[in-house]
Amino acid sequence: MGFENEKNNSILSKLATNEEHGENSPYFDGWKAYDNDPFHPLKNPNGVIQMGLAENQLCFDLIKEWIKRNPNASICTTEGIKSFRAIANFQDYHGLPEFRRAIAKFMEKTRGGRVTFDPERVVMAGGATGANETIIFCLADAGDAFLVPSPYYPAFNRDLRWRTGVQLIPIPCDSSNNFQITTKAVKEAYENAQKSNIKVKGLILTNPSNPLGTTLDRDTLKSLLTFTNQHNIHLVCDEIYAATVFSTPQFVSIAEILNDEMSHCNKDLVHIVYSLSKDMGLPGFRIGIVYSFNDAVVNCARKMSSFGLVSTQTQHLLAEMLSDEKFVANFLAESSKRLAKRHKHFTNGLEEVGIKCLRSNAGLFCWMDLRPLLEESTFDAEMSLWRVIINDVKLNVSPGSSFDCQEPGFFRVCFANMDDETVDIALARIRRFVGVKKSGDESTAMEKKQQWKKSNLRLSFSKRMFDESVNLSPLSSPIPHSPLVRART
Amino acid sequence: MGFENEKNNSILSKLATNEEHGENSPYFDGWKAYDNDPFHPLKNPNGVIQMGLAENQLCFDLIKEWIKRNPNASICTTEGIKSFRAIANFQDYHGLPEFRRAIAKFMEKTRGGRVTFDPERVVMAGGATGANETIIFCLADAGDAFLVPSPYYPAFNRDLRWRTGVQLIPIPCDSSNNFQITTKAVKEAYENAQKSNIKVKGLILTNPSNPLGTTLDRDTLKSLLTFTNQHNIHLVCDEIYAATVFSTPQFVSIAEILNDEMSHCNKDLVHIVYSLSKDMGLPGFRIGIVYSFNDAVVNCARKMSSFGLVSTQTQHLLAEMLSDEKFVANFLAESSKRLAKRHKHFTNGLEEVGIKCLRSNAGLFCWMDLRPLLEESTFDAEMSLWRVIINDVKLNVSPGSSFDCQEPGFFRVCFANMDDETVDIALARIRRFVGVKKSGDESTAMEKKQQWKKSNLRLSFSKRMFDESVNLSPLSSPIPHSPLVRART
Repeated sequence: MGFENEKNNSILSKLATNEEHGENSPYFDGWKAYDNDPFHPLKNPNGVIQMGLAENQLCFDLIKEWIKRNPNASICTTEGIKSFRAIANFQDYHGLPEFRRAIAKFMEKTRGGRVTFDPERVVMAGGATGANETIIFCLADAGDAFLVPSPYYPAFNRDLRWRTGVQLIPIPCDSSNNFQITTKAVKEAYENAQKSNIKVKGLILTNPSNPLGTTLDRDTLKSLLTFTNQHNIHLVCDEIYAATVFSTPQFVSIAEILNDEMSHCNKDLVHIVYSLSKDMGLPGFRIGIVYSFNDAVVNCARKMSSFGLVSTQTQHLLAEMLSDEKFVANFLAESSKRLAKRHKHFTNGLEEVGIKCLRSNAGLFCWMDLRPLLEESTFDAEMSLWRVIINDVKLNVSPGSSFDCQEPGFFRVCFANMDDETVDIALARIRRFVGVKKSGDESTAMEKKQQWKKSNLRLSFSKRMFDESVNLSPLSSPIPHSPLVRART
Repeated sequence: MGFENEKNNSILSKLATNEEHGENSPYFDGWKAYDNDPFHPLKNPNGVIQMGLAENQLCFDLIKEWIKRNPNASICTTEGIKSFRAIANFQDYHGLPEFRRAIAKFMEKTRGGRVTFDPERVVMAGGATGANETIIFCLADAGDAFLVPSPYYPAFNRDLRWRTGVQLIPIPCDSSNNFQITTKAVKEAYENAQKSNIKVKGLILTNPSNPLGTTLDRDTLKSLLTFTNQHNIHLVCDEIYAATVFSTPQFVSIAEILNDEMSHCNKDLVHIVYSLSKDMGLPGFRIGIVYSFNDAVVNCARKMSSFGLVSTQTQHLLAEMLSDEKFVANFLAESSKRLAKRHKHFTNGLEEVGIKCLRSNAGLFCWMDLRPLLEESTFDAEMSLWRVIINDVKLNVSPGSSFDCQEPGFFRVCFANMDDETVDIALARIRRFVGVKKSGDESTAMEKKQQWKKSNLRLSFSKRMFDESVNLSPLSSPIPHSPLVRART
């Protein structure tokens, strides 16, 4: 094996041999654990439930209904096949004009109609993964750096850094102020980088936040935009969760800030990354968007889109679907309502057993505070707890350390990639794990923690905890098949 | 504008400002000329005919018939919508297992069933464009070099070089031996690079060749594989035109060579790039494939495929279509037959007016020899002739210089992206241009050349040459819409 590595080191690129792809993380290991033993209500009721996957599966019925009503939107139906030739042939990297118009319109709707987007600035990329890499390739050279508030999406290490050679400098946020980003922290990180002679090219904001599920308020956005403008660095806003906002405060896009109070600032330094993977729940379709206010970036990103164009079959379908304003309005309202309901149900279930989550208004996940369950306040203890949760409780959740969180004990738990029954099974497992039964058993989580040390824990769990599954409908198939390593979650 | 550039130079990446994207070429300018004045038999009969686009439009009827017979293959039909949720959700970067199996099987069929491909080695990328970049990112670091026989595909400068920072070193081939690649020329280029302290990481072969339309014989492949193996450098075979071979000699894939006579060689150094854009005529669907015999490259390329995954909607459709062995066998046979017929018709038409093409057996284009029409044997003269052909003859053909051909006077002309009527209009324009009427006028091309110098040429052309179009059916729509700058041609 050593010899194999040595041989490859000499003939392959550094990228292929330096293991900097970012997949060596419990975030991805958890997926593998799920893949090796995936939960199924009937076929594998004792399997791992996938709660590490930020998918939005709550509104497929609406999309399927629309498709049934609009057979002309597909190039593979009797009604639509007349367009097959033209669509299958089309490879202009600008994309179908009707697709770009529909995307711009959809971006407006997901931002409450308070701002307009120019279809000429809509640039396609291969999912948010491709869009993120594209914008970095346009803005920075290898060795340059971007500031990123942490905790942040683990695959940023692949998307933003791996092939571009750019560095990410975390701006640590913590529980003392509910993980809010402050200009002070940004300034500190910027100045420290300056002192180390690192060229900082910009700040990356994920708004709504993954993994926190929170949104940035107007004042914070203004202050961060002011900071980046003053220092002549870029502000890249990853807004791929824009339409997952399910309660107040409402989402504020950087585009609104530019439009309103900050219209005097240098727009050439502001860029948005968007996608339909989360807001529409269509990750398989690979719709990533770079929307830049800088003409040169639009031009360059469009040339780069050759490396990750969206299939025209998919462009055509979505151009039709997203042009249906009535459908879009209903979809967004209904999606938000269903996410709110699911969020409430899930967090209430956690609260009943004394588990708190960061208060959130968006996203497909909660930021769960398990600090009281840590053996000690270290990342080793966090990993020990995570292993128990994966191996014994059989839930794939993601530890805070994989999001580069600087404070041990937090976990991201996804709640929108499964049906109601599976959520309840997950809650029952957590309940049993924490040791607080809905009635009766009053042992506390802290007492339970002592039990983990005992070596018979795994055994006692695997025999006891899966009675919940027997009442499930044989038709339910709550978890997607084979998501070993996903492109973006 | 100077100020704008200076401003961007300081805030954007070198990629965004150094104009190394390779689009500043007559190859792309020709498309723009077409886009500004696209031929249409009725709406714009005097427009530019697009002969710069290597598209295979001859077999869409077969694909459409199959789709009509197989509504279950689409997730947007009554018969197929039950799979919508699972497919739209699927984002595993391995791709749908049935898609990879179908691709491997199709690759076998397009190589005459003489070799097998392992679905586990099939890695997805965003078109051949993405596949080409991916393999380079896996094999080489910025500054390293690859040898490429010239003339070669103009967008290699973007695909292989732009974002990877890798150099391309041409191995000049010329008419003295019908543009054949010799080991001697490869060796010379390799040694020259060594002398200049350039680290050569491999050799890239496009087989069948774009722009030549020729295939490499077994002995040449063996000798080049021996050379690359001996020097411990990679052999990357771009085989995206495999199924366009329409006459003898038959296509020989590098996979066959590895299988047969050269099974002792180091397979870790051999990689294939494939695509369905040419062989199936589906460029809009963005199916690019990296097939490597090196496990580490498969692993690395698969991680990179996150940046350009194929839409699962499209994976699903093609998995079904390409699994239909009867359909595939018929499609490949019929496509080859139609290409042969079109090629013969077109080259016969050229021969009638004394224009010779390199003898070819593959591809969607001819390598047209217009050396007798050059004012002098220089690239300036080639560009002058090209401008006349674009502006006056109104045909977008691509000059040899854009393929890095070292010998002036050759042009690539595509013949499979239009219907029969449009081909005949193009031939009539050429006939009139060269001045040799089918009967009667015996002035030679050389005499005609003298007339070009006269300034009234453009006028006389624009008034005279477009009578051919009046007999066309109003239903024909021979040219695709808006192909301004295509992703891959």
